[in-house]
Amino acid sequence: MSDYVVNAVGRKIPVKVIEETGMKPFAGTYARNGEKFTKATPTVRAWCDPTESKLVGSIAEVLKKCEIKDGMTLSFHHHFREGDYIVNMVMEEVHKMGIKDITICASSLGKAHNPIVPMIEDGTITSIQSSGVRGGIGDAISKGKLKGYAIMRSHGGRVRAIESGDVHIDIAFIGAPTCDEYGNMRAVGGKSDCGVLSYAYVDAQYADKVVAITDTLVPYPNLPASISQVNVDYVVVVDEIGNPAKIATGAAKPTTDVRKIMMAEYCTQFVINTPWFKNGFTYQTGVGGASIASTISLGKIMKERGIKMGLGLGGIAGPMCTLLEEGLIEKLVDTQDFDLHAIESVKNNPNHFEITGSEYANPMNKGAMVNKLDFVILASLEVDTKFNCNVVVDSNGMITGAQGGHPDTAAGAKCTIVIAPLLQGRTPAICTDVTTVTTPGETVDVVITDYGIAINPRRQDLIDCMKDVKLPFKTIEELRDIAYSMTGEPDPVEFGDRVVGIIEARDGTIMDVVRQFKEFEV
Amino acid sequence: MSDYVVNAVGRKIPVKVIEETGMKPFAGTYARNGEKFTKATPTVRAWCDPTESKLVGSIAEVLKKCEIKDGMTLSFHHHFREGDYIVNMVMEEVHKMGIKDITICASSLGKAHNPIVPMIEDGTITSIQSSGVRGGIGDAISKGKLKGYAIMRSHGGRVRAIESGDVHIDIAFIGAPTCDEYGNMRAVGGKSDCGVLSYAYVDAQYADKVVAITDTLVPYPNLPASISQVNVDYVVVVDEIGNPAKIATGAAKPTTDVRKIMMAEYCTQFVINTPWFKNGFTYQTGVGGASIASTISLGKIMKERGIKMGLGLGGIAGPMCTLLEEGLIEKLVDTQDFDLHAIESVKNNPNHFEITGSEYANPMNKGAMVNKLDFVILASLEVDTKFNCNVVVDSNGMITGAQGGHPDTAAGAKCTIVIAPLLQGRTPAICTDVTTVTTPGETVDVVITDYGIAINPRRQDLIDCMKDVKLPFKTIEELRDIAYSMTGEPDPVEFGDRVVGIIEARDGTIMDVVRQFKEFEV
Repeated sequence: MSDYVVNAVGRKIPVKVIEETGMKPFAGTYARNGEKFTKATPTVRAWCDPTESKLVGSIAEVLKKCEIKDGMTLSFHHHFREGDYIVNMVMEEVHKMGIKDITICASSLGKAHNPIVPMIEDGTITSIQSSGVRGGIGDAISKGKLKGYAIMRSHGGRVRAIESGDVHIDIAFIGAPTCDEYGNMRAVGGKSDCGVLSYAYVDAQYADKVVAITDTLVPYPNLPASISQVNVDYVVVVDEIGNPAKIATGAAKPTTDVRKIMMAEYCTQFVINTPWFKNGFTYQTGVGGASIASTISLGKIMKERGIKMGLGLGGIAGPMCTLLEEGLIEKLVDTQDFDLHAIESVKNNPNHFEITGSEYANPMNKGAMVNKLDFVILASLEVDTKFNCNVVVDSNGMITGAQGGHPDTAAGAKCTIVIAPLLQGRTPAICTDVTTVTTPGETVDVVITDYGIAINPRRQDLIDCMKDVKLPFKTIEELRDIAYSMTGEPDPVEFGDRVVGIIEARDGTIMDVVRQFKEFEV
Repeated sequence: MSDYVVNAVGRKIPVKVIEETGMKPFAGTYARNGEKFTKATPTVRAWCDPTESKLVGSIAEVLKKCEIKDGMTLSFHHHFREGDYIVNMVMEEVHKMGIKDITICASSLGKAHNPIVPMIEDGTITSIQSSGVRGGIGDAISKGKLKGYAIMRSHGGRVRAIESGDVHIDIAFIGAPTCDEYGNMRAVGGKSDCGVLSYAYVDAQYADKVVAITDTLVPYPNLPASISQVNVDYVVVVDEIGNPAKIATGAAKPTTDVRKIMMAEYCTQFVINTPWFKNGFTYQTGVGGASIASTISLGKIMKERGIKMGLGLGGIAGPMCTLLEEGLIEKLVDTQDFDLHAIESVKNNPNHFEITGSEYANPMNKGAMVNKLDFVILASLEVDTKFNCNVVVDSNGMITGAQGGHPDTAAGAKCTIVIAPLLQGRTPAICTDVTTVTTPGETVDVVITDYGIAINPRRQDLIDCMKDVKLPFKTIEELRDIAYSMTGEPDPVEFGDRVVGIIEARDGTIMDVVRQFKEFEV
């Protein structure tokens, strides 16, 4: 018997990993559609005595009240992005108490959390589940320092994992820009606004214990609340929940990179020649330079032709808010804010709505908003000739990115467009096999590079649409060949044997595994 | 061994009922505070294929899709009040299909639902759980026509019952003034606006199958949604969901009844002489003539003294909205709208918020908003000398009212004031023993009648506050004696033996039972 199983994207998944985790190999994007399952549920504490207070004096004290112990799962959100202080603040106290074997279930982790790396090394933290990891944590995982597997999930996949009980959160720590003494949390009105708390909603619903951490206690009731008092056990007031300068950055300057502007122009031309570019269309884009440029370029054509976007979705940055303000978008729904413009917009614009992570992208609720996307414009570190994308593992083999909503939106959208410059530095972005699959090629329809555009052969409808459109169409193999002709065919990355990470498909199956980073011999 | 157990309000609860239902006798309002329990959870169907539609052509078809069968529990909300068409519309099809042994779990039922009485008689419906029942259904239950027990719950108690798994909803039918084709429901924007859908939220969360029924299909996405697409399986469009004239009535004229105006004045004088009448106080009132009059009278004093209400809570009627508009209330939170003014206000006023039934009053979440009430002004059919209130059973023994938020707000508020004219027609409202206990006397602090005011002796703090206040204070026994001196001491109501209804305490224990109505011999 073989020691691996080949999954639906052709990846070899070790039987050992399947057996240890109880997870199944990926069987196709829609394989679990229609499946019945019983949702997970928390064990909670009733609170009907109106004289009790939820205020607790310190993180250390609240950990005791929550009866923290070895082996528990603690959860965090990443709406404070690289300005977050909460993860470190909580884990420092956990570490002081000598607690071991903690699983961290975060919506994402970044460089801000480098201070927890020693806790990975000393066994305080033995398992990590996150959309992605960057910086020191990615490095530590790739180098095999985490005892258990790191599980990388999409934003929708995380909600699914919690709702289905694949992971059970013992204590959720939710940093909130403002909170009242009974636990109503908002993402605005404080010292460190973050716009929305979308990804934390599922934590509040499914964790046994929920702790609000804020630096701005406001009068009761803090409404409209993103997270409601009915799910919150304790409120802790601290000096600072984050660094405002790193939580909300100013507006990104429009790119001046001609390659990016050209790809953005290709993207716009592609979009407007599909049948879905009409009044009321639904659209999502990222925050890379080319994505932002394509939003701006699309906006011009919308204005010229009098076509309005019905719904803009996803993580939101300033350019989408500008289109909303100009009346070119009817409604924006938001799970994450990338700049101050977006934070102000969701706070003040009545057509800009906060939604939950489940509403955004959960593949196993009764229908997420990504299912309604006409277009999504994505970036990718690598795309291979099967149109599989990799957004988590660097071409040198180091875990460094995050799934985010990449596979969720790709699965939902009628037209998924990936923009990638043909070369990322000296590395081909278009290749025969991506280092690690995060988004299956069956959900990726178009790849736009600075050397040409490839349409997935599965989408004959799109190929027909573009018959008379003047854009530099090529096959994906041609694009790869151009890349390889410039850099030479890259040698496959050499990994160690040990599996350190699992790329979880949004439906909870194994899309791919990540093996230990092999350091160059010196 | 005795065949009954005496509970904490002195009511004899038959052992047979305890054994048959598995319910415990009421042990005190805060007896379950701090109790840990695992929440119930639904079995749902994943919906990740973006090409599937949720639109279904008819009620009959959706019943088949939901695999309706004998013995199921169907749920409904009562936001359309006496204008509701949904319950009858669904039950007519269920009846046509020959389905038997249905439990109806409604947030409330009224006279509008008289057409389902024959279905109680023929065994289509064998169990009813509701805040209350009026008209034909109350009559049928009281006369023993329902096979099982009718369970009467408070609004908070219903959320608790569903969340704890005491009742499991197989299919929830949620009438929505507007809905999009993916199930996002709002209470405004249609032919028959009802303002909020607060009580249906828990149904959407905990039912296995959720059906949206609307007469106004609107473009996607219908935001901000009261009930989200992620919990909705099917959408059915019908001609009419209700009678707008009976869903939303015009403004009630202020009462001209001098007794009511006098009681309202007593109430205001009482409120303003307590320590909680200060800037930011929290307040709830009902929609009876005296309650409305006391809101208006309190508003005048607030204006004179420059005191603002921080938070107004509960079912909302026009007078509270007027105070909000005049800047005398900072925020209103709303679970039910009693008139057009309230519906317009929650739709348009940014300081008027829809909340869920759980946020309002659930005694076993992590803290409901009723816990934050300073004052609640309530009405009651009867109050006894132990301050127990009865709001469900008529003094002649017929089930005719609803618990609503009565016991929830009484348990939460610092100062619970019940206004009741000493005589209801020829019947004393103040009596030695209420016909049926719905709200325990330990949570009722003050009773205001047109013949005097009684403070619960448990509240020495309130008695002290009122030492120098010129109001006609009496003991509750004195009030009863005045009533009895006018009407004679009423004979106890004669009931049959069979228990037909259970008054469930908000924490799920048995507050009282209702026995079969005994018809006069002719």
